[in-house]
Amino acid sequence: MEKDNLAVVLHAQGDLRLEQRPIPEPGPNDVLLQMHSVGICGSDVHYWQYGKIGDFTVKKPMVLGHEAAGRVVKVGSAVVHLQVGDRVAVEPGVPREMDEFFKSGRYNLSPTIFFCATPPDDGNLCRYYKHSASFCYKLPDNVTFEEGALIEPLSVAIHACRRASISLGTTVLICGSGPIGMVCLLVAKAMGASQAVITDLSPERLAMAKELGADFVLTVNRGDRAQDLAQRVEGLLGAQPQVTIECTGVESSIQTAIYATRSGGVVVLVGLGSDTVTVPLINAAVREVDIRGVFRYCNTWPMAIAMLASGKVNVKPLVTHRFPLEQAVQAFETTRQGQGVKVMLKCDQNDQDP
Amino acid sequence: MEKDNLAVVLHAQGDLRLEQRPIPEPGPNDVLLQMHSVGICGSDVHYWQYGKIGDFTVKKPMVLGHEAAGRVVKVGSAVVHLQVGDRVAVEPGVPREMDEFFKSGRYNLSPTIFFCATPPDDGNLCRYYKHSASFCYKLPDNVTFEEGALIEPLSVAIHACRRASISLGTTVLICGSGPIGMVCLLVAKAMGASQAVITDLSPERLAMAKELGADFVLTVNRGDRAQDLAQRVEGLLGAQPQVTIECTGVESSIQTAIYATRSGGVVVLVGLGSDTVTVPLINAAVREVDIRGVFRYCNTWPMAIAMLASGKVNVKPLVTHRFPLEQAVQAFETTRQGQGVKVMLKCDQNDQDP
Amino acid sequence: MEKDNLAVVLHAQGDLRLEQRPIPEPGPNDVLLQMHSVGICGSDVHYWQYGKIGDFTVKKPMVLGHEAAGRVVKVGSAVVHLQVGDRVAVEPGVPREMDEFFKSGRYNLSPTIFFCATPPDDGNLCRYYKHSASFCYKLPDNVTFEEGALIEPLSVAIHACRRASISLGTTVLICGSGPIGMVCLLVAKAMGASQAVITDLSPERLAMAKELGADFVLTVNRGDRAQDLAQRVEGLLGAQPQVTIECTGVESSIQTAIYATRSGGVVVLVGLGSDTVTVPLINAAVREVDIRGVFRYCNTWPMAIAMLASGKVNVKPLVTHRFPLEQAVQAFETTRQGQGVKVMLKCDQNDQDP
Amino acid sequence: MEKDNLAVVLHAQGDLRLEQRPIPEPGPNDVLLQMHSVGICGSDVHYWQYGKIGDFTVKKPMVLGHEAAGRVVKVGSAVVHLQVGDRVAVEPGVPREMDEFFKSGRYNLSPTIFFCATPPDDGNLCRYYKHSASFCYKLPDNVTFEEGALIEPLSVAIHACRRASISLGTTVLICGSGPIGMVCLLVAKAMGASQAVITDLSPERLAMAKELGADFVLTVNRGDRAQDLAQRVEGLLGAQPQVTIECTGVESSIQTAIYATRSGGVVVLVGLGSDTVTVPLINAAVREVDIRGVFRYCNTWPMAIAMLASGKVNVKPLVTHRFPLEQAVQAFETTRQGQGVKVMLKCDQNDQDP
Repeated sequence: MEKDNLAVVLHAQGDLRLEQRPIPEPGPNDVLLQMHSVGICGSDVHYWQYGKIGDFTVKKPMVLGHEAAGRVVKVGSAVVHLQVGDRVAVEPGVPREMDEFFKSGRYNLSPTIFFCATPPDDGNLCRYYKHSASFCYKLPDNVTFEEGALIEPLSVAIHACRRASISLGTTVLICGSGPIGMVCLLVAKAMGASQAVITDLSPERLAMAKELGADFVLTVNRGDRAQDLAQRVEGLLGAQPQVTIECTGVESSIQTAIYATRSGGVVVLVGLGSDTVTVPLINAAVREVDIRGVFRYCNTWPMAIAMLASGKVNVKPLVTHRFPLEQAVQAFETTRQGQGVKVMLKCDQNDQDP
Repeated sequence: MEKDNLAVVLHAQGDLRLEQRPIPEPGPNDVLLQMHSVGICGSDVHYWQYGKIGDFTVKKPMVLGHEAAGRVVKVGSAVVHLQVGDRVAVEPGVPREMDEFFKSGRYNLSPTIFFCATPPDDGNLCRYYKHSASFCYKLPDNVTFEEGALIEPLSVAIHACRRASISLGTTVLICGSGPIGMVCLLVAKAMGASQAVITDLSPERLAMAKELGADFVLTVNRGDRAQDLAQRVEGLLGAQPQVTIECTGVESSIQTAIYATRSGGVVVLVGLGSDTVTVPLINAAVREVDIRGVFRYCNTWPMAIAMLASGKVNVKPLVTHRFPLEQAVQAFETTRQGQGVKVMLKCDQNDQDP
Repeated sequence: MEKDNLAVVLHAQGDLRLEQRPIPEPGPNDVLLQMHSVGICGSDVHYWQYGKIGDFTVKKPMVLGHEAAGRVVKVGSAVVHLQVGDRVAVEPGVPREMDEFFKSGRYNLSPTIFFCATPPDDGNLCRYYKHSASFCYKLPDNVTFEEGALIEPLSVAIHACRRASISLGTTVLICGSGPIGMVCLLVAKAMGASQAVITDLSPERLAMAKELGADFVLTVNRGDRAQDLAQRVEGLLGAQPQVTIECTGVESSIQTAIYATRSGGVVVLVGLGSDTVTVPLINAAVREVDIRGVFRYCNTWPMAIAMLASGKVNVKPLVTHRFPLEQAVQAFETTRQGQGVKVMLKCDQNDQDP
Repeated sequence: MEKDNLAVVLHAQGDLRLEQRPIPEPGPNDVLLQMHSVGICGSDVHYWQYGKIGDFTVKKPMVLGHEAAGRVVKVGSAVVHLQVGDRVAVEPGVPREMDEFFKSGRYNLSPTIFFCATPPDDGNLCRYYKHSASFCYKLPDNVTFEEGALIEPLSVAIHACRRASISLGTTVLICGSGPIGMVCLLVAKAMGASQAVITDLSPERLAMAKELGADFVLTVNRGDRAQDLAQRVEGLLGAQPQVTIECTGVESSIQTAIYATRSGGVVVLVGLGSDTVTVPLINAAVREVDIRGVFRYCNTWPMAIAMLASGKVNVKPLVTHRFPLEQAVQAFETTRQGQGVKVMLKCDQNDQDP
């Protein structure tokens, strides 16, 4: 194996470097991966710009990246389900303890979980990366590496839509037409939603959402009253939506989400904003509109692969920019400026295909 | 209003007659409908041929038909949500009592429920029919009367797939490729199933299922061992299906359903056969494969209309034959011979469109 | 039947009168009840003091009372499950329409529901009262009228604890030790909760909660920080509670509820306060702590009767005061002053037993 | 540490020996336990008498025992939540792979799970035993070792009652009053069941069930018709039970379970009998009575400990016999003869207390 393990390392707020890291040796339950495609997530940029997210602070150099797919190049002694050469998607969260959350199927809530590119755990924006084999999932031949990398944001949407109990004939409001709002739209439709309204400040984003399958788009202006927006949503659908997926984290949008949702329905909070918000909680409570958050995801990779392989969900249009790993800083800058939807870094010098 | 209320009346086993019935007067909570399209169901034919199904016996003349759509021509004094001229689909089951089942949302299980064309309750294969307005659902302009009539079999599938907890990425085995198996296939896909295998004795039916979206078809031969078929299903999918929907009622097929389903999964029994069956219940039990039956449906019309209006489900190809009401006997004979998939009777002499 | 139908009528804010009302005639699906015991609820007092609750305003004279039990004295022509002489508990909410909420088992959310003593619908603080027979439930001989009347507040607790998914071994925090907090405590324990902490400002109330089965009590002082209280709850239980039932409606208590609840758990909002509150919603969201409200209840009377009949729940100690109907104003004054737990009005002059 | 590690080893069908085994060395994630109390299960006796259960065959010498509690005497290097001296209950099933079942919270269904005293995995009827620390649960001071050992059968009941969705006010039929039927009774009551009927052939067992809290007992005679028994159950309860827990595995009892259960209810199959049974599956299907099996349990130890510590469940009366480990053969013989309810082996020579 070559010695090159170029990595995108965040040393501190604003201090992003490309540097060599040693190629790690997989333990008995690990595999070593040659990374192929790694997407840049908003959280990667946020760490770069602010040095922290919530209580997670970058205190020592950390490799970024957690939307990833690569090829198995070494297999730990205890691994049976993967072989050298297998193409895999990487689930970035790996529980460290068999605690009550893991045992009961909600390992995303385990407080000691390892998670790529959440301080202090290294991510996989590099050439070679070691990961728990149990959290690497083999890709079928008809699923590309980039689709494999996009399973991470897709998983956020799958988890959100599952938490929302979207099913056949559900009507859905999605607040925010960024990358996560758009994958939520795709997933909601794939789960049987009959109609979806999506909102945003940007007409360009809404135009793209329309192309991806939104039944209605609603342009929001700063200063719009939450109750007015709720009424306009009801007007578009002919009834209040049963489910609202809030992807902005903005206080006024959370208020709209609550007012807009039908009695007995669900608001799922995906977007993260201020620590405290002022909301009409009583309006939700007396109409039994449940408010549910999401923290990352669990148990989504296998079904996401099934959806991609069967063509039920098409995430390919989400990739709007590609850069070789060597141009990572430029790629991060592109993401920071909000250009396009998803920027993909190509880590394999010999294969820059999707 | 004209005086003609030609009706398809079953007087006794084998004694099917076309005769005039008085036009009923709607009560305060009813609407009077001019029927437009009514499908013939296997149960209609079964009553005609055998005079009974299970404990339900035809003891006095009964109008047949329960897959129906029509137009409102008179509105009861207490009805507010419907108007003369509205095109509606008819949910044939109307609970008579506010019992524990109705109050808890499972009104299909209410033992005193009224149900069209289940003795002694009259159905709606006639020109004019009175029904509880609360169980008539307005059709949008882009949903035809025939689609409205097909909501009844579609509801069987929706209820079965909901009971099966089909969701995004679920893999499904459907045993039996008759009309109900086919609508189950459509609904399972619309709910996000990633892959579906469907079985049948008839290659013709399987060919049609393939066209409707089946990923794999499996031709069954009489005498095939259940465990062997289960293995072939696993071979096709690469893993056992998480859900099996059994639509044949045949003992050997129920056995296959149990052996084939993945641990922790669900077998839904839709098909009805012998009163008692010999099955490997312990195999299901120790693998926690749940066995769930369905009895008709509840809470399906609104979501079915939403699915049809949004084009998520296309049931139009299921209608293979049409007859004017006057030729009802010929239509029943066509159904009895198993020709085509769904035979539709056209009850409105002035409008025989779909 | 005698002509006396003394009723407790609220004419406007602050204007509570005892006056005669005509004895109503039951319709075909109704029963006429001779009221026996009717509890005074905080909402009755609130209407009296403020003339409204939220958007519900007293615009014309309204009979108060909705925690009620009585004896059947007349039976509508279509009623089959009740007879003259039956002792019944009254569920005060009766859906008027078979809408989507009723059909799906959540009739409490039906916007057109009739509800005793919610303007403009009359309650049952009177001698004779007519009610839908389907919402009158026969009491077994070993359940008293007063227990029957207490099924109403008990139902609030049952609905809240069901919405909280309390089950075997669940640890529970209850915020507020008023009547509803106390019945929540009883019900949580009956559903298998292993440990319950209850909070209040009042040491007297906490002492009573301790007697009713609270494992731990926590005296709250105005100005206590929400996060500090959350930590003290964790200290008492040795871990965060899986469920919190918030019965105060106070902003700081809702904050405590969120901080205190274990990741993946549930906060149920029972208490009602300001229209908008400032809360750490993101703390709940990223730990997947669901926030669920309750609006009254549905499908609780039969199980409540089963619990009372089998002795699983003992609500008798909750009744601390009794007044004959003629002394209703004094009884309301007692409730207004916050004396005792539950004040019961005795409507039958010939039987003032519990 | 002493060198004595006397163990109860099954060499082959009928060949049960007491012999010395080496004291194992715990790995980094293990603890070494000095066993204190280990109950004898029907499956231990079955392996002894028949050499196999289903497909599991004793092919090489295997230590028996899986209902166990002991004291930590050595702690693996990576273990943080346990210390030497801790008293722990042992969950006998430890998943070996992070497969789909483990990740989704149903690790009991993992096909490669390690399980004490299921061939070829050794159990813990010995002096010293090594186990995964993540599956050893610290006992509070007020829970005895024997109660800790009884968490295993208690877990079968908890899992069964959870699968049955027993909640407040549920009425329950339990078929079979052996040890598992009795713990199911205890657990059903603790989960809020309002009334429970229990059946058995033996009046003695039924008398004990009555003492443990059964509301009704029903003596079954061989040859009783299933439908007749179902009617007698309905007669006792005044209505059909919502849940039936079948603990016998006998075909006629499974039939009774189906006929007896209310429409929309659940039959849980706990008892294991013949591979195939002849049952009225259609009766269950058309009344939507779900049939659910159980395989061991998952996620039960923490809540079981909570229940024991809080006194919500009292399992102490179940222990009717105690033997020192040295008299294991006599203890097994006692169990084989069906004497008493639970036989406990005391493995610590210096502490034979409960």
